[in-house]
Amino acid sequence: MKKLEKVTPQSENFARWYTDVIQNGDLMAYGATKGSIIFKPLSFGIWDNIRLNLDRKFKAVGVQNVNLPLLIPESLLQKEKDHLQGFNPELATVTEVGGKKLSEKYYIRPTSETLFGDFFKNEINSYNDLPLIYNQWVNVLRWEKTTNPFLRTREFLWQEGHTIHSSETEAKILTTKMLEIYKNFVSDYLAIPVMDGQKTEHEKFSGADFTFTIEAMMKDGKALQAGTSHYLGQNFTKPFNISFKNRENKQEFAYGTSWGVSTRLLGALIMTHGDDRGIIIPPKIAPVQVDIIELFANKDERVHKVASQIKEELLSHNIEVKLDDSDKGAGFKAANSEIHGTPLRIEVGPRDLNENQVLLVRRDTLEKVYAPIENIAITVESLLTAIQNNLYESAKQRLFNNIVEVSNYDEFKSQIEKGHWVLAAFEGNGEDEAKIKEETGASTRCIPFELPIKVNNDVCFYTHKKSKKYVIFAKAY
Amino acid sequence: MKKLEKVTPQSENFARWYTDVIQNGDLMAYGATKGSIIFKPLSFGIWDNIRLNLDRKFKAVGVQNVNLPLLIPESLLQKEKDHLQGFNPELATVTEVGGKKLSEKYYIRPTSETLFGDFFKNEINSYNDLPLIYNQWVNVLRWEKTTNPFLRTREFLWQEGHTIHSSETEAKILTTKMLEIYKNFVSDYLAIPVMDGQKTEHEKFSGADFTFTIEAMMKDGKALQAGTSHYLGQNFTKPFNISFKNRENKQEFAYGTSWGVSTRLLGALIMTHGDDRGIIIPPKIAPVQVDIIELFANKDERVHKVASQIKEELLSHNIEVKLDDSDKGAGFKAANSEIHGTPLRIEVGPRDLNENQVLLVRRDTLEKVYAPIENIAITVESLLTAIQNNLYESAKQRLFNNIVEVSNYDEFKSQIEKGHWVLAAFEGNGEDEAKIKEETGASTRCIPFELPIKVNNDVCFYTHKKSKKYVIFAKAY
Repeated sequence: MKKLEKVTPQSENFARWYTDVIQNGDLMAYGATKGSIIFKPLSFGIWDNIRLNLDRKFKAVGVQNVNLPLLIPESLLQKEKDHLQGFNPELATVTEVGGKKLSEKYYIRPTSETLFGDFFKNEINSYNDLPLIYNQWVNVLRWEKTTNPFLRTREFLWQEGHTIHSSETEAKILTTKMLEIYKNFVSDYLAIPVMDGQKTEHEKFSGADFTFTIEAMMKDGKALQAGTSHYLGQNFTKPFNISFKNRENKQEFAYGTSWGVSTRLLGALIMTHGDDRGIIIPPKIAPVQVDIIELFANKDERVHKVASQIKEELLSHNIEVKLDDSDKGAGFKAANSEIHGTPLRIEVGPRDLNENQVLLVRRDTLEKVYAPIENIAITVESLLTAIQNNLYESAKQRLFNNIVEVSNYDEFKSQIEKGHWVLAAFEGNGEDEAKIKEETGASTRCIPFELPIKVNNDVCFYTHKKSKKYVIFAKAY
Repeated sequence: MKKLEKVTPQSENFARWYTDVIQNGDLMAYGATKGSIIFKPLSFGIWDNIRLNLDRKFKAVGVQNVNLPLLIPESLLQKEKDHLQGFNPELATVTEVGGKKLSEKYYIRPTSETLFGDFFKNEINSYNDLPLIYNQWVNVLRWEKTTNPFLRTREFLWQEGHTIHSSETEAKILTTKMLEIYKNFVSDYLAIPVMDGQKTEHEKFSGADFTFTIEAMMKDGKALQAGTSHYLGQNFTKPFNISFKNRENKQEFAYGTSWGVSTRLLGALIMTHGDDRGIIIPPKIAPVQVDIIELFANKDERVHKVASQIKEELLSHNIEVKLDDSDKGAGFKAANSEIHGTPLRIEVGPRDLNENQVLLVRRDTLEKVYAPIENIAITVESLLTAIQNNLYESAKQRLFNNIVEVSNYDEFKSQIEKGHWVLAAFEGNGEDEAKIKEETGASTRCIPFELPIKVNNDVCFYTHKKSKKYVIFAKAY
């Protein structure tokens, strides 16, 4: 194992803390292509667990997994003009093969609406063939100018759902349903509370009628968009000619949705829960839930015996466990467990064995608990549940304690400076949003479905018009 | 559901049979980029089951899943010269982004040895850090001139394992172990028997010291390379400077392996088991194991009730089942089940219900079995096992019945013409192999680890030199 480097405290420099913990925690390495990262086993293990569990939720509402090609021929991308403009500067383009120029350019997918559009049109005849509810777990490329590991990388992994329906209502219902699945999953498995709501016209997905979003608050107060669900109306079905014979025997253009979450959820997880000792991974999504550490095993043969027994017992209870039987010292092993974010560790040492007990240490509170070896799995399960709940509740408190209402632009600027989220009545347009962002760094995150705090004002803080539309603003990743 | 088209009989035109069944079976659609395909839910479901089950076998031998970027910078690919030459004409190249030319070209990975090479070198210090046993499930691109759905597509999905070790022996042991995992998995889950052996120098992976392979026989007699495992020695660790401090405290270059199976396994599955009614999917890998078909449900309310009960009972036994309660006719529903390769179907109709039974039809033998509704899950489980075994045994018989020994080139040409595999003593070199391929269409498949049939000759059929090296030749996909 490599020597552990010091971690910059969060209060000193949050951005440096972030890069310190993701490298020390063996989550990633930088890729050969600038702006790209390598997902090492721990981070990929988290992503794989996200996929496994989210796929189950998807399957339960009729989603079917497919796989579409990576490349979009030039001619195809031209079909939806707004869409093209939105992504144009970031499109990695294949122009030659084996040194020979191609007759047509191909773009590496930044997202696959156009490819699904081209696919769907041959798949349906009548309303009987609808809906089609498809999803794929793939890689996408967006040649970003500035990058940040997990949060904004030139290539990232995600799932993108694409659906077509025979009615506007059904499509809108699915748009809402998927966001709810995201919200519940992110809260339940990642222990991350979110604000769910609608994006403003300025911030919505280019090509959507409207966009729903879930926004999470990181420990530095910044917002992170954790997932989105778009109602596309007929914006793609018209140009791609995806129509069906409806119940009145007339041709009608289908109604579409798309929705996705990506590996930026790993960044959300790191920055929502991590502390100065490293990352903290919620038990429900952790590839390793318990680290068992042997102390002085070479001096006392009971240590390895008991450690192995505990490992077997935990495995038989479907708990993911790793045993550290290396010859490193106690301090190193403990720090190693902490930097890798394992939610719980068990230390097996001769002194405690004399009392027929082992020491358990929670990663979230760093609380030490002595527990009998007998029925250790029950103790562990109960602690893992407590840790999961505590991580969620702590994050929830931080979120709601740091959203404030403002009634004027000065208050707005002051609260944003403090690293808070602002909830404010707002009637400004896209230009106003762009100006506010330029001046304060804060962007609109969403118009929340439910107000997170009580509001008192009904006048837009910026335009001074009467308003009952409350919008969350924040600096964001 | 769309109208079913007629399927070309295998005996009339095997290639057309193949494209008929994969389209009628809703396995794939053609992608927007020529030579690419869309994996529809059924084929992706099979691939997903392959991944799920193979991942378990991998995990049991210490493999850890990671994810490396898609693009290889030009400078990186230059490092292993042979490797570059092997893939050069097929490399899809990114030269610009958003219309602007890049300062360096990027190749879409055809395989990731160079990327893993670049990654590994920063990951190890001493022999204590070895071995590293990594794998990734990703997409790769090879701009093939001629393509064939699943068998040879410009983009395909696969898993590629890359490992580095502190000793030649350990690396060679792993090379063998992975091939064994492939052989057992392909036989056990896909019901496909294979010949395992070593590739000739001419046919091995460019960059490997030696390549092991598993070769399957399709129903038209052609061979299909189903998986490969390469011992790379220090061919990548030297140019990439992947060295470690060994037990003698000296720097030593690590020893590498790589191994992979891809979505061409879907092609293997289709062409090993399919018949003139469509594809046949072995139960152990089938996304849908049982189709329950309702007959005359609108005339007799018991039909839907019993069909639903059976569905629930099968689901509770972890059997993947689909219920067809549409208003199509009996003939259509049966043909629909067959074309989609579902291993077993249950027909629920009023006449049989009067006898408290249902009709089960095996997809492999088309045998009809009447069975009592009570404990139907036990009957189903037993039939699924029988179907899995029968598919494997039939394929195994076909394989061993169609390998013949030859002692001269005329016999060779004649047997190849008949669509057989040839086992022959062979001392020819790469040029000889190329000539034989040009003249007969047959290539060397492998030098089998175990002779599949008894041999009588000990003279090379081509060079007439003395030889005890027996090589399998065949026309291949």
